[in-house]
Parts: sequence; structure tokens; C-alpha cells
Amino acid sequence: MSFMTELAALLDPAGILTGAQIDGYLLDNRRRYHGAAQAVVRPRSTAEVAAVMKLAHAHGVPVVPQGGNTGNCGAATPDGSGTAIVLSLERMNRVLAVDADNNTITVDAGTVVADVQAAARAAGRLFAADWGAVGSARIGGALGTNAGGVNVLHYGNMRELTLGLEVVLADGTVWDGLRGLRKDNTGYDLKQLFIGSEGTLGVITAAVLKLSPQLSAQATALVAVDSAEASVRLLRGLQDQVGERVTSFELVSRRCWELLAEHCPELPQPFDAPPAWSVLVELSDGGSSLALTERLAEALFALGFDDALLAQSVTEAQDFWRLREHIPESQRRRGTSIKHDIAVPVSHIPAFMVEAETALKAAFPDLDLVAFGHVGDGNLHYNVFLGDLGKGVYDHEPAVNAIVYEVVARHQGTISAEHGVGQLKRDQLPLYRSEIELNLMRTIKAALDPQGIMNPGKVL
Amino acid sequence: MSFMTELAALLDPAGILTGAQIDGYLLDNRRRYHGAAQAVVRPRSTAEVAAVMKLAHAHGVPVVPQGGNTGNCGAATPDGSGTAIVLSLERMNRVLAVDADNNTITVDAGTVVADVQAAARAAGRLFAADWGAVGSARIGGALGTNAGGVNVLHYGNMRELTLGLEVVLADGTVWDGLRGLRKDNTGYDLKQLFIGSEGTLGVITAAVLKLSPQLSAQATALVAVDSAEASVRLLRGLQDQVGERVTSFELVSRRCWELLAEHCPELPQPFDAPPAWSVLVELSDGGSSLALTERLAEALFALGFDDALLAQSVTEAQDFWRLREHIPESQRRRGTSIKHDIAVPVSHIPAFMVEAETALKAAFPDLDLVAFGHVGDGNLHYNVFLGDLGKGVYDHEPAVNAIVYEVVARHQGTISAEHGVGQLKRDQLPLYRSEIELNLMRTIKAALDPQGIMNPGKVL
Repeated sequence: MSFMTELAALLDPAGILTGAQIDGYLLDNRRRYHGAAQAVVRPRSTAEVAAVMKLAHAHGVPVVPQGGNTGNCGAATPDGSGTAIVLSLERMNRVLAVDADNNTITVDAGTVVADVQAAARAAGRLFAADWGAVGSARIGGALGTNAGGVNVLHYGNMRELTLGLEVVLADGTVWDGLRGLRKDNTGYDLKQLFIGSEGTLGVITAAVLKLSPQLSAQATALVAVDSAEASVRLLRGLQDQVGERVTSFELVSRRCWELLAEHCPELPQPFDAPPAWSVLVELSDGGSSLALTERLAEALFALGFDDALLAQSVTEAQDFWRLREHIPESQRRRGTSIKHDIAVPVSHIPAFMVEAETALKAAFPDLDLVAFGHVGDGNLHYNVFLGDLGKGVYDHEPAVNAIVYEVVARHQGTISAEHGVGQLKRDQLPLYRSEIELNLMRTIKAALDPQGIMNPGKVL
Repeated sequence: MSFMTELAALLDPAGILTGAQIDGYLLDNRRRYHGAAQAVVRPRSTAEVAAVMKLAHAHGVPVVPQGGNTGNCGAATPDGSGTAIVLSLERMNRVLAVDADNNTITVDAGTVVADVQAAARAAGRLFAADWGAVGSARIGGALGTNAGGVNVLHYGNMRELTLGLEVVLADGTVWDGLRGLRKDNTGYDLKQLFIGSEGTLGVITAAVLKLSPQLSAQATALVAVDSAEASVRLLRGLQDQVGERVTSFELVSRRCWELLAEHCPELPQPFDAPPAWSVLVELSDGGSSLALTERLAEALFALGFDDALLAQSVTEAQDFWRLREHIPESQRRRGTSIKHDIAVPVSHIPAFMVEAETALKAAFPDLDLVAFGHVGDGNLHYNVFLGDLGKGVYDHEPAVNAIVYEVVARHQGTISAEHGVGQLKRDQLPLYRSEIELNLMRTIKAALDPQGIMNPGKVL
């Protein structure tokens, strides 16, 4: 029997989409990759995922796992050959259990991240992963890319928020590692293999995730700083003054404020004249927001950062955050840019900023640079517009990347801090990771997916 | 040429020990395993480790990596065949770099954990890993076993404290993954493979470790609680009241206080009449210890836990901690016990306690049970004396383990929370981890160490 005939026998009719129905699944979030597939397969259970994988394995059919399709590197988009199936987890979206005393939540991989946040909140707990796309991103994709976001500084990436996984392996075997333990040293920590592997080693079908105490107080401020160097000084000074209450620390350049004013005029602008650099800082704690805001004000004053806007209400804090979260949208409205998601050691951020800008300006005198990001983690979104070339800007992408990544490499940094590799950065990986390292990855890949059917052409 | 002749050419004379010199390296910390070896090899550099591994690989000689030899499961002790070499990292013990602005420290794998703590302190930072043996345990062993300790609740295990590794692979290849990045999603996170693999996949030679802000204030209390269930209630209540300031939460049973009084009479006893259960709780924060202690007192009062001794000085807090850290020593003086290092979800701790004690008492009416540990992580050290049998108690170990581990399994727990597997628990692993899971581990092991020379007979 043909693969498609056998597949049809495994699932309900709504479980298999073909033809015009599947177009949305074949285009990536940033509309850079448009692939093809035999079908989009939408199982409702781990057993169905296992059956599909067994069949794909028997027929040597490539499988591209997909969650909310919000990734930035094309990891969830099949290639153009049309031989693959897209395995969408979207119908596996239940919160399976909340254990408030253990501070854990167990969810299907297709659960939308915001739904996990809501379920945690309902139990008086915090699920700390947070970024712009949480309303459509799904847990499986977040795990596959080891997603980051605005709370990583204090709570860690998805990796740090994960205690257990259930994974369907390339041959359809189900590994049940759904344990809710904070400590378990019985052999190799297998879940670590699958987190961040972008669907190339197996299909994550469920996870046990860490919850945290829900902190009653937030203090939020926009702090003007003279330079990137001053922002690092502010970060360390704040951490010395208020310990680990610093839960977010987002650097925003003047150009971001200008783009927001021009392209998102519906949002209230906080500054009359935006400073060269500013930091959106948030502290979290028990007790009252008023007391915490006072403490933040005192700390900023003591550290000599007195040019600061302190949010005086929840609404004002939300306004600050809305601006931060609309930076990507303001860029989209401005046009097409060459984007980078780099990280260097936090101590190298100032030098990176100066050196990268100098090198880029030497090659592209007219460039329009938009830098912002999670400077507390050493992670910058560092984006380059070249006039108004539209998609033509991509012609210059190799040259721009070479310049930026050379500076990144000089500072022992990474060309992908939180977005992953996918197909976008696959061919650059060998330039910035050693052959020994890549061989180790290939060894792991060959051991777990000897047929190479798991998301081929991604990462490696 | 023979292996030993070639080996002698690779190292300085002090780099190779044989005969009576090596006895201390062949006996494990708990004196349960006494192995044999061709030699103890003590390289001074990564290049020397690589040369030794290349040679061992060419000759098929088993290699047993060893750090401070403080492990509890015999992972660093060779078997009795005498074919292996012990690879001691003790001469590779330099702090290579401290980057205070990046909150990282880079060290050789043979660096003593307490020396890492001291170097961090000197830079105004905290290296948070801490447990009884830090004065002799070395970083490589701590990483190999993914060591835990008293600060895991807030700071995580060694895994969470590690940003980068350098590893010499089974064939002598050096993988340089010494990156100090908080975010890096460029492919598989290879360091995760080696952390907790107990030397079975490669030799960790250096690491980049996370530092944290040095918090100026501590508040320490011994709180009487009626039951294990009450201790979980106290933990969650405290976290709701004071957020994530709770940095330690150690449960101590009455029997521990009795053992301390009898066998460590040099230590001042805090209680006139020890309560059934007590918790050593510590909060950490910026600001003053006095203010934090007041806040702890208020929180305890608000939660209805008013039978508490609050440390009124650093000395008093140290006295509390010294007692906690002497529980293992008081047990050693009491005699030989059957030890368990188990974890269950925190929410299951109360039921585990009742069920395990009931089941054990049914089989061993005269047992003397000593339970204590990191209840905030769900991790208990749960030790059983049977009269005064001396080492004869080990005759009953299989029966005792079967009872304890059955209750652990019923609560989705682990038979090794923080000590690892080594040789002690190797044969029990297949009883409590699935065949699919063990096969995945074997696949990884075969991929990275096809000859099986890395610490054979351990873990798998």
C-alpha cells in the first residue's frame, strides 16, 4: 500500500490535510521559506504520533514537526521537494495536570504557551516563559528551539524551565520521561538532547514544566543610559543593590524609539527626546508594587542613574512593555531588514556594539541600524536596514552577516542566541562552530535518527 | 612498546604513580569499593590528558576519571581487574579567569570546589554550589555527577551552574566548548551530555561556571513542624510571602538531633527537646540581615509556624549549619547504614514518608530510620540502621532497597537524586528506568565511546 493510503487509515479525516488547505503550514513566520509537503498530519494523541512515525520510518518519509509556526529560522518549514509530511501538534493541546505543591505543570506539546501561562496563573503560580509570540507559539516548538524571551535573566530559557519530556523517536518508539523531579541523577539526562534540537532527533509530545511563585509586586522603569557600557554597569549595580529581583533588563536604542514613533504612532511615546540608549528594567518580588518601585527608585538614584521614568501604575508598566514588544512590528512596517540574534558575554556587549557598528558603517555608510534586546543575557537583536531595498536587502545579507559574525566570533559569541538554526543559519554554522563540535552533533544525529527522516536539512 | 612505557614518555615522573602510592586512589569515599589499576595518571594540562586518552584508546586501556574522590557511588573507583588507569585531575587546579561583569568563572576541572567559591567571593560574586565535601571535592567530579547540595532550591544543580565545558573525548580529541554565554542555540547543547555522565563519555578538563550576585543578607531559622506535610506547607507559604528569597530548606527529623547529641556532643544543641520534624530555612537577599530576619519572623508568624529559633548572629547561623552538615558524620559514628538518596515530587514527600516507614517497619520492626535532606527539591537522604550489625547490615541492603524503591517508584521518584549511579546503583537502574530509556543511553554511550574504555562498568 502507498504511504498516503496507510496514513489515512491511522487518523480521523480531519487528521490529514492536503492541497490548498495546507498552504499556511508551508510558509514560515518571516515568509522567507515556502516549502511543499505530501500532507499535513494532525494527530490527537501520542499513540497517533507514534503510529505516524512508525509508518514514516517504514517508508523513509521525512517528517517536519510543527507547533505554532512562529519560529524565525524556518525550522518548521519543509523543503521544496514535496516528499515530507508536516507533523502538526496543534490538536494535542491539553493541560494535563497542575501540581501547585510541586510547582509543575504537565502539558501536551501542542498547548499554546499563553494557555500554559493562564493555567499556571489560575493555580496561583507563574509559568515564566514569555515573549511576543506566546499567543500563538506552542510548547513543543518552544522546547524544540529552546526559546528565550524577556524573563530569561531570572528564570532561564525553556531548557531551564523543563523537568520532563515525552518524545516519540524516529522509529516510532515512545520515550516516557514525564517526570516532575527537580533532581534526578540516574544516568544521562536524555531530555537535554531533544530540547533545542529543532525536531531533528524526535517529536516532543508532552512536557513537565517548572512553575514559580507568583510574585505580587512589579516595579518597571525606563532608564536613560549614555552608552551600552553604562547599561552593563547599571545591570551589575542593580543586582548588587536588589539581589536577584531584576527579572528583565532590556536595552533599547534611540533608533527603536524613532521607529516606534513613526510606524506605531498609536502607542504613547514615553520620551520627549529619546536618549541614545535606554533600558527597560523590571524588578519582581513579594509585597507591594509601591514599595518595590520606591526601592527601585532609591537604587537608581544611588547608582547615579537619575534620568529614569518609573511606571506609576500597572497600566503605565504595560505601556512600556507594549512599546518594547512592538519594536519588531515597527521594523516590519519600516521594511525588510537583515536580522541577527547574537549573544556575547555580557562584559563584551559594549565593545561588540562599537566594533560591529564601525565595521558595518565602513562597508555600508548609509545603513540604518536597529539594536535592542536582552542585554542581561548578553543577547542582542541587531538588525540592519539598507535604504529601502525591500527584499533586495537580502542580496547584501551574506556580506552583512560576515561583518557582524566576525565581530561576534572575536568576542566568543554566538550567531544564534535564542532563535535557533533551522534552515536560515544552517550553512553558516560550520563557519562558527568547530569541526569537532559539528562531528559530535552528527554522531548524535546518526545515533538517534540513522535514516535521517527527522526534519532533514535543518540545523546540520 | 608497552602501554606503560609509552605512558611514561608522555608525562613528568610525578605524573605517574604506581604500587603502594596509589592505594588511596583505589578506595572510594564510603570505603565500599577497593579497585586495582595499572597506574594513577596525573596530567598537568588538557594536552597531556589528550595524549593519555589517545594512548589509552590505541591500547584499549580503560580510563577511570577521578577528581576529589568524594563521590558516594563508587563512580571514581576502578574495578578489581587492574587493567584500568585512574586519570586524576588533581594537578589541573587553576582558576583560569573571573569575569565579574559576565558573572562567570573559568576553571580547570581539578580545581577544588571551595577554591572556586573563594575566587568568586574575592571578585564580589557568589559561586552557589555548596555541600559538605566542597573542601575536597573537585569541579570535574562535581560536573560528572551533576552534584547538588544545600543551595539547589534557588541556584540549581551543577548543570544549571555551567555555561561551557572543555572535554577530552574517548579517542583523545579535545572539544573546546568553553563559552561563557547565557544563551546559545546553535545546534545541540553538547555540554549537557557530559554533565552527569560520571566519566563514561569523556573527560571534563575545564569549565565556565555561572556566578551570582553576592547577597549581603542572610536570615536563618530552625522551625519546628508537626509533620513532613507541614514542611511542604511551610515551603510554599514562605515562597508566597518572600518570593524566591528562600535559598535553603532542609528537613531534619528528630532522630538526627538525637544522633548529633550522642555522637557529636561537641556541637551546641539548639533544642531542649527536639521536635518530631524541623526545617533549617535560609533566606538570602540584599540589604541587612537584621531586616531580613525580621521579615522571616513575620512570615513564620503569619503562616502559624511560631515555634522557631531565629539565628541572631552569623555565629548562630553557622552553628545551625554545622549541625546540619554533621548529620552524615553523626551517622558514620553511629555505625554502618543503608543509605538512600531519593527524590519524589515535592507534593509527594508527605505520602512517601508515611508509606516508606510503614513498609520498612513491617519488614524490619527494629529499624532505626534517619531521614533528612533537601525537601525543597523533593530530595531526601533516607538512611536505615538495623541494630548494630556493622557492615553486616549490607546483607539486608537488597531487601531494604526493594521496599524503599518500590515506594519511590509508586510516587514517580528517582533512586538517585544527586549522588549518581556509579557502580553502587548500576544494577538497580534497569529496575527503575525503562528499557527504552536505557537503550537510548546505550546508544549515546556507543556513539561517543565505541570501544567502551571510558569508565567501564559505571552507570550502564
